[in-house]
Amino acid sequence: MRHSYRCPLRWSDMDAFGHVNNAVYLRYLEEARIDFLAGVARRAAPEAFTGGTVVARHEIDYLRPLVHQPDPVVVELWVTKLSAASVTFAYEVKDTEGAAGPYVRASTVVVPYDFDEQYPRRLTAAERSFLEGYFDDSQHG
Amino acid sequence: MRHSYRCPLRWSDMDAFGHVNNAVYLRYLEEARIDFLAGVARRAAPEAFTGGTVVARHEIDYLRPLVHQPDPVVVELWVTKLSAASVTFAYEVKDTEGAAGPYVRASTVVVPYDFDEQYPRRLTAAERSFLEGYFDDSQHG
Amino acid sequence: MRHSYRCPLRWSDMDAFGHVNNAVYLRYLEEARIDFLAGVARRAAPEAFTGGTVVARHEIDYLRPLVHQPDPVVVELWVTKLSAASVTFAYEVKDTEGAAGPYVRASTVVVPYDFDEQYPRRLTAAERSFLEGYFDDSQHG
Amino acid sequence: MRHSYRCPLRWSDMDAFGHVNNAVYLRYLEEARIDFLAGVARRAAPEAFTGGTVVARHEIDYLRPLVHQPDPVVVELWVTKLSAASVTFAYEVKDTEGAAGPYVRASTVVVPYDFDEQYPRRLTAAERSFLEGYFDDSQHG
Repeated sequence: MRHSYRCPLRWSDMDAFGHVNNAVYLRYLEEARIDFLAGVARRAAPEAFTGGTVVARHEIDYLRPLVHQPDPVVVELWVTKLSAASVTFAYEVKDTEGAAGPYVRASTVVVPYDFDEQYPRRLTAAERSFLEGYFDDSQHG
Repeated sequence: MRHSYRCPLRWSDMDAFGHVNNAVYLRYLEEARIDFLAGVARRAAPEAFTGGTVVARHEIDYLRPLVHQPDPVVVELWVTKLSAASVTFAYEVKDTEGAAGPYVRASTVVVPYDFDEQYPRRLTAAERSFLEGYFDDSQHG
Repeated sequence: MRHSYRCPLRWSDMDAFGHVNNAVYLRYLEEARIDFLAGVARRAAPEAFTGGTVVARHEIDYLRPLVHQPDPVVVELWVTKLSAASVTFAYEVKDTEGAAGPYVRASTVVVPYDFDEQYPRRLTAAERSFLEGYFDDSQHG
Repeated sequence: MRHSYRCPLRWSDMDAFGHVNNAVYLRYLEEARIDFLAGVARRAAPEAFTGGTVVARHEIDYLRPLVHQPDPVVVELWVTKLSAASVTFAYEVKDTEGAAGPYVRASTVVVPYDFDEQYPRRLTAAERSFLEGYFDDSQHG
């Protein structure tokens, strides 16, 4: 199963070349992750990820340029790897109809974090169970 | 040889967790690349990269958190791979004294681009010669 | 008549104090203006504002703090002044239900601009006619 | 006396029109204010503004466009009004040599704030004394 997040663009997402800047896509991924971890996850498991998470790594491939448009893009997000204290998400950013192929493919290693203790922590059983529902190791394609 | 760029922080680089946000580091890398490609390169080869470049891929590892500070960080940048129509940069983002190890290690695949023609292009001989002076395939460490 | 624009927040709109930063509200106003000038206006008058506009002045009052929320805010926008070569917009940024009073009141002087000629220009008759439909000099309240 | 802050630009400060975007200037003013309130003020009065401040109002006039440049701009900042619980700053943003006139003139009403109590507070005697050294009611020019 994939989580699908409709992410509205802002005109200011474009840089002086008139394209959505490469750094801005990390904001789209962030919005999709927050919707997933603070919204979807907590409706499934109320205590999930309440202490916060930190990003340990991103990989991101830019496949074709995106110009500001009134319609949102869709960020599809799923889980490609689960370890004791981290989860790896994959994403595709595409148009709502999606016919033309993604603008971006990316992955992020996220570490659950205890901001009070300023320390990474293990995934709980409830978090792991929730994330397994979105597991798909086929990556992209 | 590595190019060393002093990158000033802004208070607004911090997010609600009080750390420089993961997306903001791509701005630091961008500033270092622009200084390198539009500044250093053009002093060495006046026509270098005048048509612009696009980012094809980033990889970025977040090693320790960074809080806003009056002192700039240093972005070290060097070349790890050269192909006919792309160059791969590696970077480390660290403090000016650098004793405590980097905040971030990253790499970027950059494609020279002809914005008039909206098309990627090959590296020129002058660009290649300039970039070879910063070649270091030892990556990080 | 007022134009009402639903503006989604982003988590990154918050600063290290955990509130939407004062500078970010100018992005919300920008999104509402672009929706109005490039969307609503052009549906009414196809040639309206096609050359672009520039901002000559902002005034903005911050009335109460805003924390990131999944729901969009509403930006209400109307016209308070029309001159030969400028239009002044007023805005209120509030919650969709609006009961608690606005977060921000603001106004912006916008100048139609010819980006090819790099020069300000006068409002056309069609633009003026369109804008008059949103005229309300009662300002706020 | 005016406080003079050298503010480095970033390439990403430009929008799709190739100019520094109107919202970005509020970041330049923010950087100058933080340098003044967290740097200069605390060297003069160690407890000054330690609880933080909030922005109550901005006015900002855009006088001429700014394109990304390697040189920093200068933000001049001074005090135009002091009340029991607020201070009003005026600013000019210009080039380091300053011959061509400012890009922007602006003013900001700042309220000292107790972030623990989530409440505005009065200026202390030490803060007032420090700010009076930068008082100049001649505004701009």
